[in-house]
Amino acid sequence: MTFASTPPLDFRSDTVTRPDEEMRAAMARAEVADNVIDTDPTVRALEERAADLLGAEAALWTPSGTMANLIALSIHLHRGDRFLATRGAHVLNNELGSAAWLAGGMPEPLDHDGGPGRPSPRAVRASAGTRTGPYYALHTTLLCLENTHNAAGGAITPPDEHAQLVAAARGAGLTVHLDGARLWNAAAALGLPPAALTVGVDTVSACFSKGLGAPVGSVVAGGEEFVEQARRMRQMLGGGVRQGGVLAAAGLLALDRIGDLAQDHANARALATGLRELGWDTTEPQTNIVLARVPDVALTLDQLRGSGVLALPMAGMVRFVTHRDVTAADVDDALTRIKELNR
Amino acid sequence: MTFASTPPLDFRSDTVTRPDEEMRAAMARAEVADNVIDTDPTVRALEERAADLLGAEAALWTPSGTMANLIALSIHLHRGDRFLATRGAHVLNNELGSAAWLAGGMPEPLDHDGGPGRPSPRAVRASAGTRTGPYYALHTTLLCLENTHNAAGGAITPPDEHAQLVAAARGAGLTVHLDGARLWNAAAALGLPPAALTVGVDTVSACFSKGLGAPVGSVVAGGEEFVEQARRMRQMLGGGVRQGGVLAAAGLLALDRIGDLAQDHANARALATGLRELGWDTTEPQTNIVLARVPDVALTLDQLRGSGVLALPMAGMVRFVTHRDVTAADVDDALTRIKELNR
Amino acid sequence: MTFASTPPLDFRSDTVTRPDEEMRAAMARAEVADNVIDTDPTVRALEERAADLLGAEAALWTPSGTMANLIALSIHLHRGDRFLATRGAHVLNNELGSAAWLAGGMPEPLDHDGGPGRPSPRAVRASAGTRTGPYYALHTTLLCLENTHNAAGGAITPPDEHAQLVAAARGAGLTVHLDGARLWNAAAALGLPPAALTVGVDTVSACFSKGLGAPVGSVVAGGEEFVEQARRMRQMLGGGVRQGGVLAAAGLLALDRIGDLAQDHANARALATGLRELGWDTTEPQTNIVLARVPDVALTLDQLRGSGVLALPMAGMVRFVTHRDVTAADVDDALTRIKELNR
Amino acid sequence: MTFASTPPLDFRSDTVTRPDEEMRAAMARAEVADNVIDTDPTVRALEERAADLLGAEAALWTPSGTMANLIALSIHLHRGDRFLATRGAHVLNNELGSAAWLAGGMPEPLDHDGGPGRPSPRAVRASAGTRTGPYYALHTTLLCLENTHNAAGGAITPPDEHAQLVAAARGAGLTVHLDGARLWNAAAALGLPPAALTVGVDTVSACFSKGLGAPVGSVVAGGEEFVEQARRMRQMLGGGVRQGGVLAAAGLLALDRIGDLAQDHANARALATGLRELGWDTTEPQTNIVLARVPDVALTLDQLRGSGVLALPMAGMVRFVTHRDVTAADVDDALTRIKELNR
Repeated sequence: MTFASTPPLDFRSDTVTRPDEEMRAAMARAEVADNVIDTDPTVRALEERAADLLGAEAALWTPSGTMANLIALSIHLHRGDRFLATRGAHVLNNELGSAAWLAGGMPEPLDHDGGPGRPSPRAVRASAGTRTGPYYALHTTLLCLENTHNAAGGAITPPDEHAQLVAAARGAGLTVHLDGARLWNAAAALGLPPAALTVGVDTVSACFSKGLGAPVGSVVAGGEEFVEQARRMRQMLGGGVRQGGVLAAAGLLALDRIGDLAQDHANARALATGLRELGWDTTEPQTNIVLARVPDVALTLDQLRGSGVLALPMAGMVRFVTHRDVTAADVDDALTRIKELNR
Repeated sequence: MTFASTPPLDFRSDTVTRPDEEMRAAMARAEVADNVIDTDPTVRALEERAADLLGAEAALWTPSGTMANLIALSIHLHRGDRFLATRGAHVLNNELGSAAWLAGGMPEPLDHDGGPGRPSPRAVRASAGTRTGPYYALHTTLLCLENTHNAAGGAITPPDEHAQLVAAARGAGLTVHLDGARLWNAAAALGLPPAALTVGVDTVSACFSKGLGAPVGSVVAGGEEFVEQARRMRQMLGGGVRQGGVLAAAGLLALDRIGDLAQDHANARALATGLRELGWDTTEPQTNIVLARVPDVALTLDQLRGSGVLALPMAGMVRFVTHRDVTAADVDDALTRIKELNR
Repeated sequence: MTFASTPPLDFRSDTVTRPDEEMRAAMARAEVADNVIDTDPTVRALEERAADLLGAEAALWTPSGTMANLIALSIHLHRGDRFLATRGAHVLNNELGSAAWLAGGMPEPLDHDGGPGRPSPRAVRASAGTRTGPYYALHTTLLCLENTHNAAGGAITPPDEHAQLVAAARGAGLTVHLDGARLWNAAAALGLPPAALTVGVDTVSACFSKGLGAPVGSVVAGGEEFVEQARRMRQMLGGGVRQGGVLAAAGLLALDRIGDLAQDHANARALATGLRELGWDTTEPQTNIVLARVPDVALTLDQLRGSGVLALPMAGMVRFVTHRDVTAADVDDALTRIKELNR
Repeated sequence: MTFASTPPLDFRSDTVTRPDEEMRAAMARAEVADNVIDTDPTVRALEERAADLLGAEAALWTPSGTMANLIALSIHLHRGDRFLATRGAHVLNNELGSAAWLAGGMPEPLDHDGGPGRPSPRAVRASAGTRTGPYYALHTTLLCLENTHNAAGGAITPPDEHAQLVAAARGAGLTVHLDGARLWNAAAALGLPPAALTVGVDTVSACFSKGLGAPVGSVVAGGEEFVEQARRMRQMLGGGVRQGGVLAAAGLLALDRIGDLAQDHANARALATGLRELGWDTTEPQTNIVLARVPDVALTLDQLRGSGVLALPMAGMVRFVTHRDVTAADVDDALTRIKELNR
């Protein structure tokens, strides 16, 4: 049997999702204005709705989640600051070091000793030291959380654990930023509003262009004053765009689709179950990411590709991500192809 | 007479142009893909066409002209480098200092002694010094040109003058970057292909979101190797977007409209003539920008706004910009309103 | 006649001065301690005396004037800030761009329209704009003065003119830093205490290693809080040294020698007079620097070197600096050598 | 019994060592010149001797070890690079984050799984990934070693282990920098020339101001081309000093005293043995550092201080450092005081 003639099944990332007709139509009729020198009404509507969903005073649209995090860290961090982040965090591993060279912080990676994707409150306290100290010492000033945690296989930090981590950080005088690129997935999986997962943080980022299916766009949210600083920082980085409403319209529609993520999660569970039945060593997905331990990641990815199944390496494993452009039938199809591989 | 009930006539910038129905339709049907981990076909098509028009090997889409310039300067400049730019250049005055603090260069502003918007080749040679020198001295390594030149009132640097400046820079061992945010206007005004105005430069930026009417998007072009570095730099800054094709489709259509800029230029000339007839001291526009010297810029801008005519301050003057969303009739209307003001 | 067998007369800079026996003895008996984790008593004594002389609350020793300025600008400037400095200022031309890439400011060079080495108060007001403005605009936040001004030939800004510049800056909401590397020369020439020349500034730097003859060391002075920030910044840059008292002892003795600078100034006047008698086009020195306009700087420097007279290029001219290691007789000797050259 | 009337015994750091009479005399008679625009002969002599001892082509004097490391990392690292360093490394914890915000690298701390103070070659290979990779990924480009390792209690990496680590790094395409602030201690302890411990590295830093007793000064060594870049970087940071020979003379004498470090090591062993006899949980010192695990570091440091024994916190423990200004008798005295404490 050959899969050469069929399009590949793409589990590389939920970022590959394409806008559907409804979304394209919403973009085509978006009301717009120059969002640098004026305010684009659709961008504003998206920012207001996102702020509301995220439990923040205000929010700012950005072209990418990388820029959303970069803006937040650039405002929070100063030369001589250290920040705490989870080992494998996107800000540490997947943003080309901008947290260090541009935002200006010295990172301290924390182990996931509080559960998958999160440190323990004890570790936060232990690593935080103090905000002050001798003038010649780094000052630890920021805790950066990630929920769901990509490199931990889409792991969720539930509200209680989140609250304890925030309390530990606050007790040590730290600011807290939450990388919530896939916070919507955590909310959908727990059946909670997203704001239930941002309690106590200073700032949070979130993406419309992953599982929610928008083509472009993210947001960084926080207090009014933070967002005014963020607007200036966005302009500095070249992220200030003109009639952004054409993209924000997609974001608004995307926010109507948070509930749809439950299907992606079901598909991920089906994929993990199927893979295990085929003898693979996989994580049990909490959301839309399945990690599989294999002896040779590059070799396995090549073999999968040969069978028309696309995945990516992550944290020394093979990562499969389910999303709105792969169906339950596609998962079955992928398992069939992988079964062929195993023979 | 009152203008309170009519919408204002917006001469603040050509960035306020909104996508029309044809452009929205093109965006709505754009073929797209994840342009970070794959290549979005519409983004690629736009990059290839822009590179071709600009006479470059390759090009890279960016969310803004600010990011396009920032990427180029970040690649060209190193710590300890000085760069030459024209007084009032966008990279000096309108990009929040990123050429200095992020790209890393010490600027040397040059007077416009070669004509409006450009230094003389002699001044380039004199300021260039040499690329090398004692280890404790700045090394001048880059000349940054701007065509048309915003703060010089949309002034054009014609091909001959351009060639002499590039030759002077080359003779002094300098790299040359051209900020061509409005290069299309220069090309349209001269009746030349844009590539006639980029001869000899290393890199050039250009915008789709100004007079050409696209909502979002710019490009930075140069050699293949430069563009590969630029892609990495774009990602670092958070300018790597996913299904960018929805925006690139607007850019492709925008490039069909370079010829339309002639109308904006005619409108600018009509506006300047009309203003002079009303006793204003204005520049003679070469493209779509009219600068007016007034005793009190803030006061005049306020009065204009009260009459429903919007403009912005620029280089200590009042700047009017014509664009595809103001018609010849709108110019007449504006002149009528201003005439009322004068009484 | 030949000068091959005699040592060259070194007018390149007052930085070439070597510590004399008295200074070496003071260094050898200096009381010292680890000035990173404790306070070196001799460093502290020097810092207190320098602060007092400069009219500041506190001061911090640095290894160089470049670092002193860099620390001050790094604390004053933030991303998105513009600073005003005189054309040819040391922070613009002679510190390898660190004011831009490390301190983070976009410079705006001001012409010397207020007198040699200084802008007019009007120009400061005009360029300052306002500290605030739209979020997408540079904010001008700092005026950097230089007294005496190196590239302006050691020109002095007298107290009245200084006061007017500071008032103009304050009125525009600007912070003021004074690069006082050779402030001692201005004080000596005017017969005033140095503090008379720092009135109203936020911070000032000064050097012990130029005309005062110390081998190494400068200082940056300002308020207590500034100095605490400066101490941290010095450590970041690697300028925190251990038993710095061995150098500070030289600085303390150097401060006893401010009066000696009058001899250097007399020597500079004699040199300028002599050169003019030989047909040279020179500035009239206010302190210890003579600039001479020559048709070909590199050629003249070569010829001078061939005759055993060393000078350096500066601002497109030949710069001669007098200092404690060249005597009045050396000046006569140099003039004799140059006279030979002319024949 | 009280210790109030006697001076404290200072085990905080070997940086507290003061220059003795012989060293002061050498400094007082040092031949000097302006080392920015010329070459100071004593600085040159020190740089040549240090380069020779360290097995490098060339070396550059710096005011501190922090600056020596910062210069090396700034030259090795570029935006988008990741570097590997041992957990607790000086460049990670004790240099105010300059490796991140100024040198520009994203750090990856490695566990000490190859022995105290060093990773295993396997871990280096595993973490190195590859120098290249997709354009959107960090490129790991540098391994930073530290020998002796401060936070690991002065632990030595012996030549064989060093060679294996260098081979692993080379195999992965990495550059190697060695922070050799206390490399002299490793050499003295092993009875080897320092160059035996730098085999294969690209660059190495070393300090004269720690156990060797010079008041100020360090060095960074590498290839000729590296040192020329380093000279420029030193100037940028404000580390270029004028008559540095007064300090270099101390460095030259310090290098005659490497053999004396054996006494410090013997004293450290005696201190550790004595502390263990008093029931303390200490490391077995390989060089001049003793770490003690105590329940409450701050409390213990306070109690020690009350008894006239000074130490510092390090890596969650109490650190005692022996050096040329504490004798064997001082160690006995300290143990007596601590014994009193225990009662």
